[in-house]
Amino acid sequence: MNKVRIGIIGAGRIGKVHAKSIQNNISNAEVVAISDVVAKAAEEAARENGIPVHTTDYRELLNNPEIDAVLICSPTNTHADIAIEAAGAGKHIFCEKPVDLTIEKIMETKAAVQKNGVKMQIGFNRRFDHNHKRVRELALAGELGDIHIVKITSRDPAPPPVGYIEGSGGMFIDMTIHDFDMAEFQAGSRVYEVYAHGAVLVDPAIGKAGDIDTAVIVLKFENGAMAVIDNSRQAVYGYDQRVEVFGSKGMAAGRNDTPSTVELSNAERVSADKPLYFFLQRYMESFTAEVQSFVDAVQNDTPVEAGVGIEDGLRPVIIAMAALKSVKENRPVRCEEIFKP
Amino acid sequence: MNKVRIGIIGAGRIGKVHAKSIQNNISNAEVVAISDVVAKAAEEAARENGIPVHTTDYRELLNNPEIDAVLICSPTNTHADIAIEAAGAGKHIFCEKPVDLTIEKIMETKAAVQKNGVKMQIGFNRRFDHNHKRVRELALAGELGDIHIVKITSRDPAPPPVGYIEGSGGMFIDMTIHDFDMAEFQAGSRVYEVYAHGAVLVDPAIGKAGDIDTAVIVLKFENGAMAVIDNSRQAVYGYDQRVEVFGSKGMAAGRNDTPSTVELSNAERVSADKPLYFFLQRYMESFTAEVQSFVDAVQNDTPVEAGVGIEDGLRPVIIAMAALKSVKENRPVRCEEIFKP
Amino acid sequence: MNKVRIGIIGAGRIGKVHAKSIQNNISNAEVVAISDVVAKAAEEAARENGIPVHTTDYRELLNNPEIDAVLICSPTNTHADIAIEAAGAGKHIFCEKPVDLTIEKIMETKAAVQKNGVKMQIGFNRRFDHNHKRVRELALAGELGDIHIVKITSRDPAPPPVGYIEGSGGMFIDMTIHDFDMAEFQAGSRVYEVYAHGAVLVDPAIGKAGDIDTAVIVLKFENGAMAVIDNSRQAVYGYDQRVEVFGSKGMAAGRNDTPSTVELSNAERVSADKPLYFFLQRYMESFTAEVQSFVDAVQNDTPVEAGVGIEDGLRPVIIAMAALKSVKENRPVRCEEIFKP
Amino acid sequence: MNKVRIGIIGAGRIGKVHAKSIQNNISNAEVVAISDVVAKAAEEAARENGIPVHTTDYRELLNNPEIDAVLICSPTNTHADIAIEAAGAGKHIFCEKPVDLTIEKIMETKAAVQKNGVKMQIGFNRRFDHNHKRVRELALAGELGDIHIVKITSRDPAPPPVGYIEGSGGMFIDMTIHDFDMAEFQAGSRVYEVYAHGAVLVDPAIGKAGDIDTAVIVLKFENGAMAVIDNSRQAVYGYDQRVEVFGSKGMAAGRNDTPSTVELSNAERVSADKPLYFFLQRYMESFTAEVQSFVDAVQNDTPVEAGVGIEDGLRPVIIAMAALKSVKENRPVRCEEIFKP
Repeated sequence: MNKVRIGIIGAGRIGKVHAKSIQNNISNAEVVAISDVVAKAAEEAARENGIPVHTTDYRELLNNPEIDAVLICSPTNTHADIAIEAAGAGKHIFCEKPVDLTIEKIMETKAAVQKNGVKMQIGFNRRFDHNHKRVRELALAGELGDIHIVKITSRDPAPPPVGYIEGSGGMFIDMTIHDFDMAEFQAGSRVYEVYAHGAVLVDPAIGKAGDIDTAVIVLKFENGAMAVIDNSRQAVYGYDQRVEVFGSKGMAAGRNDTPSTVELSNAERVSADKPLYFFLQRYMESFTAEVQSFVDAVQNDTPVEAGVGIEDGLRPVIIAMAALKSVKENRPVRCEEIFKP
Repeated sequence: MNKVRIGIIGAGRIGKVHAKSIQNNISNAEVVAISDVVAKAAEEAARENGIPVHTTDYRELLNNPEIDAVLICSPTNTHADIAIEAAGAGKHIFCEKPVDLTIEKIMETKAAVQKNGVKMQIGFNRRFDHNHKRVRELALAGELGDIHIVKITSRDPAPPPVGYIEGSGGMFIDMTIHDFDMAEFQAGSRVYEVYAHGAVLVDPAIGKAGDIDTAVIVLKFENGAMAVIDNSRQAVYGYDQRVEVFGSKGMAAGRNDTPSTVELSNAERVSADKPLYFFLQRYMESFTAEVQSFVDAVQNDTPVEAGVGIEDGLRPVIIAMAALKSVKENRPVRCEEIFKP
Repeated sequence: MNKVRIGIIGAGRIGKVHAKSIQNNISNAEVVAISDVVAKAAEEAARENGIPVHTTDYRELLNNPEIDAVLICSPTNTHADIAIEAAGAGKHIFCEKPVDLTIEKIMETKAAVQKNGVKMQIGFNRRFDHNHKRVRELALAGELGDIHIVKITSRDPAPPPVGYIEGSGGMFIDMTIHDFDMAEFQAGSRVYEVYAHGAVLVDPAIGKAGDIDTAVIVLKFENGAMAVIDNSRQAVYGYDQRVEVFGSKGMAAGRNDTPSTVELSNAERVSADKPLYFFLQRYMESFTAEVQSFVDAVQNDTPVEAGVGIEDGLRPVIIAMAALKSVKENRPVRCEEIFKP
Repeated sequence: MNKVRIGIIGAGRIGKVHAKSIQNNISNAEVVAISDVVAKAAEEAARENGIPVHTTDYRELLNNPEIDAVLICSPTNTHADIAIEAAGAGKHIFCEKPVDLTIEKIMETKAAVQKNGVKMQIGFNRRFDHNHKRVRELALAGELGDIHIVKITSRDPAPPPVGYIEGSGGMFIDMTIHDFDMAEFQAGSRVYEVYAHGAVLVDPAIGKAGDIDTAVIVLKFENGAMAVIDNSRQAVYGYDQRVEVFGSKGMAAGRNDTPSTVELSNAERVSADKPLYFFLQRYMESFTAEVQSFVDAVQNDTPVEAGVGIEDGLRPVIIAMAALKSVKENRPVRCEEIFKP
């Protein structure tokens, strides 16, 4: 097969990241069109990245027979509908997470994907991160033995605007969802029960908007492992993304990435760089790696990588809902209370 | 006041640690007598550490007017009774943790101590550890702002014999109790609720003995902070003792101590020393520091340091009981369900 | 000015690196032609990087009025002649180091560049490396005070073929030359005297070819600072590239970069990733950064960055020659013995 | 043999360190007398460390038949004479470095020691340091293959008073002498040639006193290895003591020790503890370890450990003299120019 021809739906921050990385770094794909409801955004992204076609109507991309696959980078509440349409149009789909905030829509999307025989990959980019992936590789290589405890620290450098939080589904849905996926990735097993404790410690305005900004979460896995996640909307020292997996034969743990490795020793202290500021810096490589993986699957007509398919897109949403319920009712909540397959 | 004259009750492992560190490193104290129900143990400890008197009867120490203070290093189930007797004899008391496994006995001990006007310090040596103490100092200096999240990793290098576990009260009581104290120390606040998840992942024999060997625990503090503790009876790489405190202004985190700082880089890997093997290596300095603090309090007739008094000895026992109940009932348990002052 | 239009002369390893990084990552430049005496190499590089024109004759590039600047990536012994021709053709020049192995040719090149009023930048990419640059930035910000000692460790993962060494001018010229430049960069001053000790410790065949494979070198700077460089042709753990600068107010020191930050702790040891294997991995970012800097200078008609001009290309060659003489005569050699401006 | 009975000659800083560590930590030795020309110093050291006898006349110790061995901790210029007397009195000798500033006196001491059949150990405590020793152990275990490059960084936190420097023999003799010994220890071979470059960069008063305060030194070993040492009288961040050994199979490198392992991450930076301040903190353990080794040799009538005998005491003095000559004459100096055995 020739280069995979891609249409990008949504020319916001993440859409532009994908456009740039495909054009520059993925040799077996090319972006042939980009759409955004804001004409100027589509036009600018097209110009900056040498994309021949731009439009305000994503359906032009779905109807374009030159396009093999679409990347859905539009707002979350449009993901499922566009994905269903795209599946109907026979396009392979790469969809930013989460697929949807409701289980029903995700199931509906899954059905459409299966019915139309297209591939669908969810944007769980962190599975492709050099550090987190290395931890998992060590586990898969047997270096850790049986997994006992997964520890995930995930803290943002600063909270999003309160307006964003109101529409995002809240911290568990817009932020921890990555950690729920990471936890299942690292444990190599499914979560069956969640206990979450959340609080408003960063900004009372977040509390007024009905959300929390700080949390610790306990997950129990079917294989007997357990996980703890700790979250904050605001780590003043930057984006804190660490994963540690402890097992019967050893422990693997990653530190944060930094702009340089230089230490300054002076009369006051020994000091070093803060972590890379936020996800665009920290996870840039992984955005390329995940799309490369998707493009390869499309080009070679192989299944998308294990763990990032449409059925996997459902998992963290279920866990997030269980976590929300757990905070509300202050008790451990079983995933089957949320969804029984 | 002259040198503080000390009698040590119990010539087991920790009794000998204290004997040695007082004789060698605490210049304003001297051990004048040591007792153990095993005559040979008392005799040996006396000989090795230049202690003039040894006996099988701790009451000889309590009746000895030359003795200012006693260190109670006997088995846990004798702590409270001996402490009450010692208080009655007017001796200042340093008692290994836990004071007792029942709240009643601890309260009784507290009453005896108060009635007799003696000092009593509990052996929470980790508060005196160079790393953990440094984290707390940074918090007290305001470097961390408000405390949001306390993370404690506490894993032993190998499980104790199953027989020991049967009499110890179990992992929460014999091992995590240190972490419960550390959590309150680092949060600078009291725990009001506990959620614990425990499992048997290391050795089924521990499960048969009615205990767990792996756990993650969520603590909620009165000041709004939260903590996560993770425990394992067996970290194959050695004793894993790390504390991290995250707050509104920053984070302080300690790594494990190692025998050397040397890294070996070869064709296979870059490798470094494992952590110091177990508590006798890792916390040796802190055993001296805590007794030094006690000796100073006795010599200068000042209160024992904040946080290690008899009333503090009660706190981790309550939390441990709440944790046990939480595991059994799989729900968060409030401390006041265990004990209402 | 529009995009800078670039011709690349030489489609070997480094030529292809530059082609790829310009096409993908430098938005204000484009490669419009590439040449190589090996037709297939030019053709392949053109195809892979979307370069419209390829040829076996670099003069086609010099005669092409569409081309603003050339990157000279051909073998070292052709650098100066091509650069002189390019200057004559009015092309701005980015030339891989070293410009030449003789001082005369470098002076001749410099004269041609000045006469024709073109810009010329030498490929001292390490000045653009995130770690080494950070060290220098700290010095420039006054954090280190007066520079006293510069320490450079520079070791290759494996020696080049002996055949390569025979034509390269030897270790000081093909490898240490980067370190000589780095030393002046970090010291912020010029070397006036060199003492070098070299030996054959890695492979006797290198000795038979008249070269050394291991060296330590002392440099003295006009500002009073001193430097030590240590080199090996073979560090079995990979490419070892560390710079440390010590001054009156502090020290800045970088560690090696690694593929991940993950540490594995098991019953044997705590282990971590080896350094990135070699210069293509380690210095990839810096190759882009140096060409970006050159392109900006051409586009904005500003001088090339301080320290990487044609006159700077002469410095490390002089130092290398002094070092060679020092090894041969086992005495400190003053730079003015080599070249008196 | 019973406990080794020790007399300490000199109750200054290092004499008191030894007194304390023997009394507290070396179970098979006891200090039975201490002398100092300053009566008060001897009296105080005796009182603080429970030493029964103190005197202003070291000859009382030499004449005391109860004493098996003496520790010579008096000023450098008295070392050799006292050692010769002590050997004549049949006492085993532990002598602080350097034995003397002249080769003649050292040879004379050696002769006296051999004639009287007593043991003599020189206080090269750094060979017993946990980090430096670990590096050597890795080399001896074959982990490094053939040794190619030894790198020693040795910087003091602050210069001594100029008055001290005037009598000390200068930086090479009072400070670098430890590094010269360390270099031979780590290389496992003898130095045959030295090139040293020294400068006055810290304090002009040191220059006026005829000494230097900053230096880099190249050493060549008989086994083909080479070493670089860098020294400064003033590292504002504290005592900088690092050793790195690079060989055909790998590299071992130690970092500085710190008071704690805690890192503070805040909005400004990630910061950590500075190195332990000076030698009393940094090398405390090694002072005990070296005397323990000496006491064991005396008790068991075995030779003193390889590398710290009287003949080894001569080596660093020769190298230091060669280094001084090298600075003066700005040329590499062979050790045999200084002393031909």
